[in-house]
Amino acid sequence: MEWIGKNLRELRENHPLVQNITNFVVMNTTANALLAIGASPVMAHAVEELEEMVNLADALVINIGTLDTHWVNSMLKAVKIASQLNKPIVLDPVGAGATKYRTKVARTILEEGRISILRGNFSEVQSLLGSGRTRGVDAVGYDEYLAQELALRASEEFGLTVAVTGKTDFVSDGNRIFRIENGTPLLGRVTGTGCMVSSIMGAFVAVSSPVQASVSTLVIFGIAAEKAEEESPYPGSFHVKLYDWLYKIDEELVEKRKRVREIEMEG
Amino acid sequence: MEWIGKNLRELRENHPLVQNITNFVVMNTTANALLAIGASPVMAHAVEELEEMVNLADALVINIGTLDTHWVNSMLKAVKIASQLNKPIVLDPVGAGATKYRTKVARTILEEGRISILRGNFSEVQSLLGSGRTRGVDAVGYDEYLAQELALRASEEFGLTVAVTGKTDFVSDGNRIFRIENGTPLLGRVTGTGCMVSSIMGAFVAVSSPVQASVSTLVIFGIAAEKAEEESPYPGSFHVKLYDWLYKIDEELVEKRKRVREIEMEG
Amino acid sequence: MEWIGKNLRELRENHPLVQNITNFVVMNTTANALLAIGASPVMAHAVEELEEMVNLADALVINIGTLDTHWVNSMLKAVKIASQLNKPIVLDPVGAGATKYRTKVARTILEEGRISILRGNFSEVQSLLGSGRTRGVDAVGYDEYLAQELALRASEEFGLTVAVTGKTDFVSDGNRIFRIENGTPLLGRVTGTGCMVSSIMGAFVAVSSPVQASVSTLVIFGIAAEKAEEESPYPGSFHVKLYDWLYKIDEELVEKRKRVREIEMEG
Repeated sequence: MEWIGKNLRELRENHPLVQNITNFVVMNTTANALLAIGASPVMAHAVEELEEMVNLADALVINIGTLDTHWVNSMLKAVKIASQLNKPIVLDPVGAGATKYRTKVARTILEEGRISILRGNFSEVQSLLGSGRTRGVDAVGYDEYLAQELALRASEEFGLTVAVTGKTDFVSDGNRIFRIENGTPLLGRVTGTGCMVSSIMGAFVAVSSPVQASVSTLVIFGIAAEKAEEESPYPGSFHVKLYDWLYKIDEELVEKRKRVREIEMEG
Repeated sequence: MEWIGKNLRELRENHPLVQNITNFVVMNTTANALLAIGASPVMAHAVEELEEMVNLADALVINIGTLDTHWVNSMLKAVKIASQLNKPIVLDPVGAGATKYRTKVARTILEEGRISILRGNFSEVQSLLGSGRTRGVDAVGYDEYLAQELALRASEEFGLTVAVTGKTDFVSDGNRIFRIENGTPLLGRVTGTGCMVSSIMGAFVAVSSPVQASVSTLVIFGIAAEKAEEESPYPGSFHVKLYDWLYKIDEELVEKRKRVREIEMEG
Repeated sequence: MEWIGKNLRELRENHPLVQNITNFVVMNTTANALLAIGASPVMAHAVEELEEMVNLADALVINIGTLDTHWVNSMLKAVKIASQLNKPIVLDPVGAGATKYRTKVARTILEEGRISILRGNFSEVQSLLGSGRTRGVDAVGYDEYLAQELALRASEEFGLTVAVTGKTDFVSDGNRIFRIENGTPLLGRVTGTGCMVSSIMGAFVAVSSPVQASVSTLVIFGIAAEKAEEESPYPGSFHVKLYDWLYKIDEELVEKRKRVREIEMEG
């Protein structure tokens, strides 16, 4: 998978413009993560300027973390415009499953837009599938095999690339499945690290395929987090070093530290 | 007061879910403070999901720092739901007294909800009391005795626990008064540290009484700030180390560094 | 130009209250930059309280980074009130030129208010001038001479002080032009550093003239950034050290490191 390092190089050569319609909690941190890795962030949601802004952008990231009616309107309009323009779209359905409103909004975005990548944790992605299909999963609970199956099934159901993130991450586009082990539990002690991942996927999907973009992001972000933790194992300092390592990471470090493999699909 | 360390242990064992309807300035930093100490933050304000979200939460924190009509509607609805469900509520009346609108909104929340803890600085808490009662205080100005009296009077007037924070902090539930001296003036050079305190009170009040939650938060947050300042006496680095120490602080450090005492009430 | 150091001293003696109606991305970071340098930030936008809040404030900073109708209404109202009260106003037209909506809103604010300082990058300021005047600039593209000319022409056209920031910064009030070389490209890897500059100009303009405020900010902020980069050349750590140096910088350091000169104007 030399394409991971290659995608990183391309991202830094092209510094794609990534438009984010995201939540209030992470606007600053996702913008900084995009800048650190080498992309250009723009946060803009006014319906009056969506047409022009999406046109300028190389990718669109939608994150429903602090949604309300006003913002959902902007998200749906932006997704429609981006779909017409064939701009890649990343959807982060933050909190889907926790409330009916979030589940419904995330599903509507999935239906109305041509989403390239859906990135969520197990319960978020699971909640977006039809209930009949998820009952078994509900009953059994989370483990690695189920996460892998969920990525595959969701990608088939929605016809897009799905990244189910957790202790181990799984990416599938319905034809292939990748398993990524980079990262550290300390990421869970800093708010918005999942949202950073979704935003960075927006940068990579501007220079590569959705499945490559998802895998590249999870490997690179995971390694940056591992390096940051080696320097500072406490959440405040770790958070700061995470940006440093998103900036410092290079192809050599990626090759040396990547823990990713493609899983053979059963016939 | 061994219960301070015990409450910290319980918080970390239960990692309570703290819902915050708070201001734009501090959404990221209060979420990170809650994660660092060991709680689970959620920021959600859409009226469509308040019923479900408050139901999931172990406590609700309302902070009026960047209020407007839209947000006040969410706050009032959330407070009503939380009151019906007997979920503890912390109110941070940021800027009450500075404008009539803030004073009015804070008073309305106090009247319409069953607030557990009111946390503000001297002038904020003072502005919420009837004007007749505060004139004397206005004339004399701030000092420690007046802050102590204010905590007591406000707790009696509103029938809840009041934390008046400043150089020295005072907590009263009308029956007891506590005086806390932990902390550092450098906290005033980082935005949202008062808001972090209110959010962390939301985590502690999910595992202890309002008065214990207030005292525990002020002692623990104050010690974490002192340790952070010892490592980095400049505001940027201090801010980062503050999260580190909210994560690192343990019962032993609390016992060693706590500066708190209960004040004998005059009969 | 001993007035740069003198203005810094005055800012710290008076800690002016700077009201910001700004974008979601930078609310936290601009508040922290203002606190670090020694000013008092307030973020408030509710129309119900604008009259009182602007009255309390020593300066108003308007930043259209994440504008929408709701926020634009607040901005226009605040600008009107501040103009009537003769409070200095700084306008940061983030993204003007990128979309018609932003250009229009920024122009409306310029027309309806008595703005003291307009602070933007080359393309933002350029977009606010009549198209006839900018065609030549468009054709030639950016370089230092054009930025200097743009600062001068815009200050003449709008009758206010203009700061055109970039690799080299230019400040003009129509009568004088200053050229500032402090700073580092690493500022471009942290979101909101331009917004911090505009906010800090709000603090300086409360204690000095618009042209002195603009020059003082750019020199001081630029030196703080240089010192921060010397300590930490990676964006996460650099960002943290930037606050440290806004706090630490003193008149002696300003004198030693300032790279600013007044440009002789051609008759």
